[in-house]
Amino acid sequence: MPQVIEIDDPSDTRLDDFRDLSTADRRPDRPGGRGLVIAEGVIVVRRLLDSPYPLRGLLGIPRRIQELVPDLGDFDGPAYAVSADVMAQVVGFHLNRGVLAAADRAPQPDPAALVDGARMLAVLEGVGDHENLGALFRNAAALSVDGVLLGAGCSDPLYRRSVRVSMGHVLRVPFADLRPWPSGLDLLRAKGFTVAALTPRADAVDLRECKLAGEKVALLLGSEGPGLTDEAIDAADIAVRIPMASGVDSLNVATAGAVAFHALGVS
Amino acid sequence: MPQVIEIDDPSDTRLDDFRDLSTADRRPDRPGGRGLVIAEGVIVVRRLLDSPYPLRGLLGIPRRIQELVPDLGDFDGPAYAVSADVMAQVVGFHLNRGVLAAADRAPQPDPAALVDGARMLAVLEGVGDHENLGALFRNAAALSVDGVLLGAGCSDPLYRRSVRVSMGHVLRVPFADLRPWPSGLDLLRAKGFTVAALTPRADAVDLRECKLAGEKVALLLGSEGPGLTDEAIDAADIAVRIPMASGVDSLNVATAGAVAFHALGVS
Repeated sequence: MPQVIEIDDPSDTRLDDFRDLSTADRRPDRPGGRGLVIAEGVIVVRRLLDSPYPLRGLLGIPRRIQELVPDLGDFDGPAYAVSADVMAQVVGFHLNRGVLAAADRAPQPDPAALVDGARMLAVLEGVGDHENLGALFRNAAALSVDGVLLGAGCSDPLYRRSVRVSMGHVLRVPFADLRPWPSGLDLLRAKGFTVAALTPRADAVDLRECKLAGEKVALLLGSEGPGLTDEAIDAADIAVRIPMASGVDSLNVATAGAVAFHALGVS
Repeated sequence: MPQVIEIDDPSDTRLDDFRDLSTADRRPDRPGGRGLVIAEGVIVVRRLLDSPYPLRGLLGIPRRIQELVPDLGDFDGPAYAVSADVMAQVVGFHLNRGVLAAADRAPQPDPAALVDGARMLAVLEGVGDHENLGALFRNAAALSVDGVLLGAGCSDPLYRRSVRVSMGHVLRVPFADLRPWPSGLDLLRAKGFTVAALTPRADAVDLRECKLAGEKVALLLGSEGPGLTDEAIDAADIAVRIPMASGVDSLNVATAGAVAFHALGVS
């Protein structure tokens, strides 16, 4: 059972895991200088409870804490119940979802272990925008992508904003760094994957005419502006494109990913 | 040629079209109480210049104004050149894209005229979130949707935030209200369209098995939370679904639209 602890002093040091969250993504005092894993709102907190990240504690208004107590199982750490006003003072802004959970980070899975048993993977290069990264994990989870591999230039998926935009799915879809880049893609081929690079290049295969049904596919996605590097495209087995109207910029990377995950996926 | 006018007094009333933009989406003094059409940044301003909305004027830092002068053709209205500081004071926040254009609204096309000649349409119900609405227009433009019809409960696509998120494509993809709702869908059938409702319902047809190639399709999309109403689904010819992993919320409506526009579109 968690210990529900009522606190009414916002400066109470027991609340420090939740303090000034808008600047807490970097924590020089923590391993790797990275902040704790923070989940916001009942739904995302539940996804955190189902994740590999070790829960440290909760902070919320009494109603939300009570709503989550049945989900906490044998967690015997603290669940701090505070007023909405104290919560806003601790966190640094008003958080209308009413509850937060903090967890420690955990070691990433080994890429080879992540690939084993997977049917569809997303492989990202240069996706630095935290919202795009979060949205991509949300779409990957919805469309049955088994894991995400992070090539060069990607941001940290566990950044608070990515967790929120992903609706907590970055906590459930496994991810790992793939190094060296892009030659690490050889691992995927060795495991029987076809590596398909998504690019607007005119000589790429129209995604609707791409025959990969039944194959294990790793979809390579680049950042919105420059797209994939030539090195990454050259390291893929095939280049595929989403047919686009003329005069239109590319789709958002998370949206392009969703279109391709659906088109390449199996029911 | 536009008149480039330098101004250094932020209270100059000639700048009133651009004043306090964070609250200017509602303008009781304008027809229908709705604000002007505002485009932000060089790319979106260019899309406004290509649109049916009559340009009233520009406001920007000198470099951005000069960049746009060659695009302004025979527009002989004002282009106000100001410092970044004056611009921030007028607009009410710092706008790092450096240039804005304001235009009058214009009458919507008649739905029947919009439908004529179209091959694929999006029909929205209850899409009230301005960012989702903007993203949906961006995806519609990229994936060759010919027009958007707005059923009950949709927001104003010309709201400033929708224009920005759409990257200006709400200014180019034609849209019109469809009334009465949902019986107005009969117009589409009369014009030879198959009306396909996108819904997570288990008895809907898997989008990948849906044989609509070569047909004219109107894709019916509902808001993210409640989805389409039963009345709207019943008024459609077919219900289609995107196969989703279990335990995952629905996709964002703009993302779901992109997946379906691609799947149902022709190259």
